[in-house]
Amino acid sequence: MGTTEDLAGWLVASRPDDIPADVVHEARRALVNIVGCALGGARHPAVDITIDALGAMFGPPDAAVLGRPERADPLHAALLNGITSHVEDFDDTLPRNYIHASSPVASALLAYASANRVSGRDLVHAFVLGFEATSRLGNATYPSHYTAGWHSTGSVGVFGAAIAVGTLLGLTHEQMIWAIGLAGTQAAGVREQFGSMGKALHPGRAAQNGYAAALLAQKGFTSGAHGIEGPRGWAPVTSAERDLSKVTDGLGASWELHVNTYKPFPCGIVNHPAIDACIQLHDEHGIAPGDVAALRLHVAPLVIDLCGKTDIHTGLEGKFSVVHGAAVGLVRGRAGLREYTDEAVNDADVKAVRERATREADDPAVTEDGVRVELELTDGRVLEKRLTASLGNLQRPLTDEGLSAKFRDQATLAVTAEQAEDALELSWRVDELADVAELVDATVPDG
Amino acid sequence: MGTTEDLAGWLVASRPDDIPADVVHEARRALVNIVGCALGGARHPAVDITIDALGAMFGPPDAAVLGRPERADPLHAALLNGITSHVEDFDDTLPRNYIHASSPVASALLAYASANRVSGRDLVHAFVLGFEATSRLGNATYPSHYTAGWHSTGSVGVFGAAIAVGTLLGLTHEQMIWAIGLAGTQAAGVREQFGSMGKALHPGRAAQNGYAAALLAQKGFTSGAHGIEGPRGWAPVTSAERDLSKVTDGLGASWELHVNTYKPFPCGIVNHPAIDACIQLHDEHGIAPGDVAALRLHVAPLVIDLCGKTDIHTGLEGKFSVVHGAAVGLVRGRAGLREYTDEAVNDADVKAVRERATREADDPAVTEDGVRVELELTDGRVLEKRLTASLGNLQRPLTDEGLSAKFRDQATLAVTAEQAEDALELSWRVDELADVAELVDATVPDG
Repeated sequence: MGTTEDLAGWLVASRPDDIPADVVHEARRALVNIVGCALGGARHPAVDITIDALGAMFGPPDAAVLGRPERADPLHAALLNGITSHVEDFDDTLPRNYIHASSPVASALLAYASANRVSGRDLVHAFVLGFEATSRLGNATYPSHYTAGWHSTGSVGVFGAAIAVGTLLGLTHEQMIWAIGLAGTQAAGVREQFGSMGKALHPGRAAQNGYAAALLAQKGFTSGAHGIEGPRGWAPVTSAERDLSKVTDGLGASWELHVNTYKPFPCGIVNHPAIDACIQLHDEHGIAPGDVAALRLHVAPLVIDLCGKTDIHTGLEGKFSVVHGAAVGLVRGRAGLREYTDEAVNDADVKAVRERATREADDPAVTEDGVRVELELTDGRVLEKRLTASLGNLQRPLTDEGLSAKFRDQATLAVTAEQAEDALELSWRVDELADVAELVDATVPDG
Repeated sequence: MGTTEDLAGWLVASRPDDIPADVVHEARRALVNIVGCALGGARHPAVDITIDALGAMFGPPDAAVLGRPERADPLHAALLNGITSHVEDFDDTLPRNYIHASSPVASALLAYASANRVSGRDLVHAFVLGFEATSRLGNATYPSHYTAGWHSTGSVGVFGAAIAVGTLLGLTHEQMIWAIGLAGTQAAGVREQFGSMGKALHPGRAAQNGYAAALLAQKGFTSGAHGIEGPRGWAPVTSAERDLSKVTDGLGASWELHVNTYKPFPCGIVNHPAIDACIQLHDEHGIAPGDVAALRLHVAPLVIDLCGKTDIHTGLEGKFSVVHGAAVGLVRGRAGLREYTDEAVNDADVKAVRERATREADDPAVTEDGVRVELELTDGRVLEKRLTASLGNLQRPLTDEGLSAKFRDQATLAVTAEQAEDALELSWRVDELADVAELVDATVPDG
């Protein structure tokens, strides 16, 4: 026996009823979040370009694409879903291994479910298994795999996509071993792509190639039996150090969805405490832009390194500017995708506050999870807000209501408010749907 | 400047006239060989299974598939060509880095050329560039990359496919940089798959994903600018040690096609000296199976390790049996794909000689490139044949006539002898064709 065989054995023996109710609810939350992210990213130029470049290759339009009017064969729909759901860097994060597991797994599943009748119960089951395997493989190879330069959302997520689709296909034990092996031998994606469209290609290809691995295995395309752990298998080849016991120990007893987190703001997570604090100041004090004399952000040194930009002109630059995040939080009381457009960055009120903002790593008591904000008003008052854990952390998870608000904020970039409500409502009860295609169809823009 | 930018700059400045005539001829030889291999592998179960599993996803049937009646969108045609041309392990080998470069590069190009009008002159130019880049990237990262467990035919070949198709697309310098980056971030394929169908998936996916990388780059899908050499780019992530000067030093002055080799026999290269020697004994002495009293193979220790099997029953086992190779060489005077079927392994004459054959690593003078064969006849005579370099080595390259014979032997497994001659003739003058689709079409079985 080996890791691959053991994992495959557990997977094919699993049944929907084996998933505890609290895990099902966390799966709902993950699906609400990732469908919202796909809608938020659906109009990104990377998606238009992919359709422009590859559309002539699309097979029969059996599948809808989340948030897009175009249809595609399910494999290309999986690719597009993976790009749309990750391209704004707003999807869920596993803080133990930095994997955004929902993008590759759900992107493949929702493409499959658009073209094949799948009940919500079966879909949630498949999602939980794909998510679980992805996160466990990530834990087993972290930090070695990630530090080496792999973008694990793609290079680990491909297993999750294969396992999730393979579960819906009802693969046998041997076929599941092959699907895992064929996924591992297609694992790819390096961090050199961070900052380019290439980054979003990773979960897209992971969804597409994992899906294909399951289809190939189902028809008898063979793989080595030790795709994960063999001496020249995925784990030894890509991860100098690994602890493969983390893949299989306690399967069914603990669930990785419980340690998944959801970003409230579409930018680097190190900015989040400052944004969160400024939104709280906005909500508590109703500050007008003209009232701000100075906005002093006392942050951890890493924040300066990664997001220290102050002289910014584009929405993309805004994502790497903690002073921009703080300014929009204070001015608008929110920091959604609309606060990271070129327009928002050049908005006069936002700019005025941003220009009065400073960021310093001068308080040793402030950790990467926290912030201390001093807001000096023109009337001389100084308001202070100190956070040790920001919204979205495991300690302060986004509530279901918070996830709904995030969904609406993103979805209305692609569809009408009415459609957004419909898609949101279907996402929250995805596990009850007789046919998940209903949810996918609800995300398609009218006309 | 960096490796990626420098390489891309050289590539986009290259013109068909820059390729020396002897390199063009070596490209012809490589294309004759790879088209023959694709025909030889076209009926392999792995190909049937791929079409069965993924056929419903195929886009418009704009491209013919080498040796198959089915048509597909060009990306899937590239995938299928990559599988067919590598699945019998009979394609060309670069002895410096063990890459089979023609499979990923030509598979993408011939799929592209089937769907788009391309002159033979342009195709050969694109092939030479894709081959050159693949081999140089292989040299720069060998042995680290291969030893780590990467199957470099896929994990390096993807660059060649992207570059070759990108050349035909006329990419700009910036687009070529992106195509290279997008290829590198899709690089995949591990050696754990050796011995399964997964191995042939590697050049297939390399051809398909490299092709897609070029299409995406053409339309503006961005990539990091240092896809090869960046700190988290392909080379550092996949190869603990590398010498990237080998990618760019002397570009245009030396050509990797000059050090490409062609297997005369469809089995592990360590068997080749023994087979070659036995074919020579057959040709020189016309031995009847009943005349053989003993066939003693004195081989290098590695031959026993890799191909020591003696009790064999299937064609696949025959590929790992030096005594089988020697026996068919002596009995039939040849060792083509037909000598590695289940039928050939169980042929009474072959079996009788094989059972009288022994293999021993007992002569320190015999290296891995050579063999000493003692053939004892029933009349008491002992014939000896000693080789220090076997057919197909750089020292004893397959002649053009030898490549034609190999082509016919394989092609007639998929098409009629008449069609095979036609395809062979077109392959030899590929650089003169006004439209390479003529060659691709010639490989499609009638009916």
